[in-house]
Amino acid sequence: MMILEAAVAEEEEGTRPILERRGEPLIGSVAGDVHLIPPSNFGVVDVGIFRSGFPISDNFPFLESLNLRSIVYLCPEPYPAANAEFVRSQGIRLFQFGIEGTREAFATISNHTIMETLGVLLDVRNHPILIHCKRGKHRTGCLVGCFRKLQNWCLSSVHEEYIKFASVKARPSDMKFIEMFDVSCMMQCVLHILYQYHGCGNHTRRLAYQKTS
Amino acid sequence: MMILEAAVAEEEEGTRPILERRGEPLIGSVAGDVHLIPPSNFGVVDVGIFRSGFPISDNFPFLESLNLRSIVYLCPEPYPAANAEFVRSQGIRLFQFGIEGTREAFATISNHTIMETLGVLLDVRNHPILIHCKRGKHRTGCLVGCFRKLQNWCLSSVHEEYIKFASVKARPSDMKFIEMFDVSCMMQCVLHILYQYHGCGNHTRRLAYQKTS
Repeated sequence: MMILEAAVAEEEEGTRPILERRGEPLIGSVAGDVHLIPPSNFGVVDVGIFRSGFPISDNFPFLESLNLRSIVYLCPEPYPAANAEFVRSQGIRLFQFGIEGTREAFATISNHTIMETLGVLLDVRNHPILIHCKRGKHRTGCLVGCFRKLQNWCLSSVHEEYIKFASVKARPSDMKFIEMFDVSCMMQCVLHILYQYHGCGNHTRRLAYQKTS
Repeated sequence: MMILEAAVAEEEEGTRPILERRGEPLIGSVAGDVHLIPPSNFGVVDVGIFRSGFPISDNFPFLESLNLRSIVYLCPEPYPAANAEFVRSQGIRLFQFGIEGTREAFATISNHTIMETLGVLLDVRNHPILIHCKRGKHRTGCLVGCFRKLQNWCLSSVHEEYIKFASVKARPSDMKFIEMFDVSCMMQCVLHILYQYHGCGNHTRRLAYQKTS
């Protein structure tokens, strides 16, 4: 966490410790800095995994502070020029999965898409990662719900979280989609990622960056 | 994150990697394990910081999976026997700050209490840490709101998050309390923690576990 990563001031720069977290001020407001504006419906899903509604340019300084390595974008529409330029300038890898924003999750999210998306999400080489759609409610909510099932959360807690972010826009069809998602179909994908990390049958913990077939 | 900490099976134990995260199965449901039940209103605040409503015994297996080092409990009532036994058995340190659960945050949360609580929260030696009150809405919401101000979030985003967890029970007085909280009063506290970590004017990054005056 922040304090652990705080840097000590070099003696030549002064005698007081600098409060910072990956280059961003920990208590910048004390120093009169501009406030950070998280995207709408922002939330922390787990270590290195964030969720939100569509980021606008006002949110870019906040996103910079997250040091994102990747973004999972769940809409079919092309990324707006400003956002495309932001990810380019930050060296962020954009994974786009064009899921239609209709009312029926069953009709629009295929099992293959959700597995592919979870594969990106589970792979720590893509972390820190931000998942977003338009409002961070339905498509993002379905994906996070499936992720929670992988984490073995009970269904009512998964639904509670879905509702927290969807609020009055919560859709029974999304909640049913999450319920019906079969985590066992992810087994192969998770093993695949593990084998990339660890190899098979040896003891190395070194990350294997090369693509495996 | 989970995959990074996954352990490779010892050859004598088999040739397939074991999927685990700090001892807890990553995809336990595939193996038919009992589902984990997070406490009501559970959320991830930041790396190593969680929030929730009052945990009941059904939630203990989930809490175990978080490997908590500390709990910040914000109610004046004594901890129930089952919870006290749980924290004892897990070696979790309990920090109790008895804030009354009335409707006026201004009247019941003193500046001193919030500073003291944030001091515990900011200190990574207490992480992973869970903050909870009764419902995880008002007292916990006020504390997390003040923490977000320390992180330099703009007020409307802090309020958005407060409302997400308080839902229809959101209280304007809590939101005003968060707005009025002066982060500059925390400067001394944050510096104090930093000095404990790093010493003053030297380059050591070793954690100083001894109490400082």
